[in-house]
Amino acid sequence: MTVKIGYLGPKGTFTKLAVDAAFNGEDKQAFDTIPACIDAIDGDEIDIGVVPLENSIEGTVHLTVDYLVHQVRLPIVAEIVVPIQQHLLVRPDFSGDLEEIKEIHSHRQAIAQCHQYIHEYMPKASIHYTSSTGKAAEIVSTRNTSIAAIGNKLAAAEFGLSIYRDNIHDYPNNHTRFAVLTKDKHNIHIHHEVNAEKTSLLITLPSDYAGALHQVLSAFAWRKMNLSKIESRPMKTGLGNYFFIVDVNQPYDDVLFPSVKAELEALGCSVTILGTYPVYQLNI
Amino acid sequence: MTVKIGYLGPKGTFTKLAVDAAFNGEDKQAFDTIPACIDAIDGDEIDIGVVPLENSIEGTVHLTVDYLVHQVRLPIVAEIVVPIQQHLLVRPDFSGDLEEIKEIHSHRQAIAQCHQYIHEYMPKASIHYTSSTGKAAEIVSTRNTSIAAIGNKLAAAEFGLSIYRDNIHDYPNNHTRFAVLTKDKHNIHIHHEVNAEKTSLLITLPSDYAGALHQVLSAFAWRKMNLSKIESRPMKTGLGNYFFIVDVNQPYDDVLFPSVKAELEALGCSVTILGTYPVYQLNI
Repeated sequence: MTVKIGYLGPKGTFTKLAVDAAFNGEDKQAFDTIPACIDAIDGDEIDIGVVPLENSIEGTVHLTVDYLVHQVRLPIVAEIVVPIQQHLLVRPDFSGDLEEIKEIHSHRQAIAQCHQYIHEYMPKASIHYTSSTGKAAEIVSTRNTSIAAIGNKLAAAEFGLSIYRDNIHDYPNNHTRFAVLTKDKHNIHIHHEVNAEKTSLLITLPSDYAGALHQVLSAFAWRKMNLSKIESRPMKTGLGNYFFIVDVNQPYDDVLFPSVKAELEALGCSVTILGTYPVYQLNI
Repeated sequence: MTVKIGYLGPKGTFTKLAVDAAFNGEDKQAFDTIPACIDAIDGDEIDIGVVPLENSIEGTVHLTVDYLVHQVRLPIVAEIVVPIQQHLLVRPDFSGDLEEIKEIHSHRQAIAQCHQYIHEYMPKASIHYTSSTGKAAEIVSTRNTSIAAIGNKLAAAEFGLSIYRDNIHDYPNNHTRFAVLTKDKHNIHIHHEVNAEKTSLLITLPSDYAGALHQVLSAFAWRKMNLSKIESRPMKTGLGNYFFIVDVNQPYDDVLFPSVKAELEALGCSVTILGTYPVYQLNI
């Protein structure tokens, strides 16, 4: 039976790029929003869902984490990491110079990521905002040749555009992270090298007092469990109440993690394992 | 002389709502991107800039923090907090029932925030994505009456729409945070009650070793300095290198903060004060 994979669409986005890099040939379906994609897994319409965890285009990590925490508890079973590479895309029949490009179309975040490039090399071009980088590529493909889109190479391929200038983003070494979600781990077949193993925890503190977070981290520190990420998020019960998302740089085991959990619960915290999973860093 | 205030536009956004709530009557100018707004302060085109720090519509906090850290070091001089309230907006001449609305227009994130409401009450309406909630309101204002936008009350006012259903967002008690930036603190006159005082620090660790973050937090914990937020961000020098943004719940002073800074520097960390500032929680 074919495994059905849902992802945050539309086609030509960074999420689709990550899905294509990680999964071959399966049935792939675009969803318009993160909650819609997560609901579809929960409702068994799809087997696997891929949504951004730390993505500077399609949306913030917050919506993914909040929806997983507050609405639908599905485990993270893998993380896919891809580099952010923004290109200047034109129609293949455009053969002019850079200064002949009169309009730049893209998502607001993509425009912002190429702020310095545009400022330096295309100061006279007018900026036009679209709802996604894919949409920008679609607009350019159907219009005249003196306009360009900013997007990734998949957007170029999907809409038959040429990469006129590559890697025009201001920061090198920037990456985006995607979570792979499923009810059944056996659905996942990613034929790439595993770069790391991680465990993500959701920790809520009993109350907002000085040093509570420090006490929580002590439980990890004296066991030499390294944290690669920590982020506080509001509890939705009002300002000042926070929960914490902690990424531990090792897989779940039957000794250290249960001990940490028991200790923190004794301190009045609640601890939820969001997932323990391999990380695939893909060079695409 | 009039103080010039720049903000992340367009009109009808949550950033504009925050600016209008905090500042009266001054010269206000919309910028298309966060970097453009920050550059304008740096280049003395405007006196004050207001950009999102934790905003679920116009973009992620990451772009603001990264640009302040890597490109233009301007101090945060105030924080404005406003509630997220999404409304269903229609033309005033629409007088039908909810099920007569055939199309919903809005930014992808606003649609996602109202996911459950739409699913329950408007399952048959088609969804159309726009580059901002303001743009959605503009589209509805110029088209026929059987379509609606999702946006805030300012978007309704700017484009002459009626609030047909209020507070249709899925989560109550959700807030967005905005940073006020300026070169000269004397530009700032906010006539509201100060709800808290905070100091934001940027801390980079010497290397990625187990417990380094724990050691950093110890410096705050034993002094009973409470942290309201902590977030790790990649250093842009490759995966695995992080810096930390820490919000301390007290104003900068000449004893505790210099001691913390000196101690952390002795451990090999670098510490930068991003700002010490009042927090204004506005009920709009």
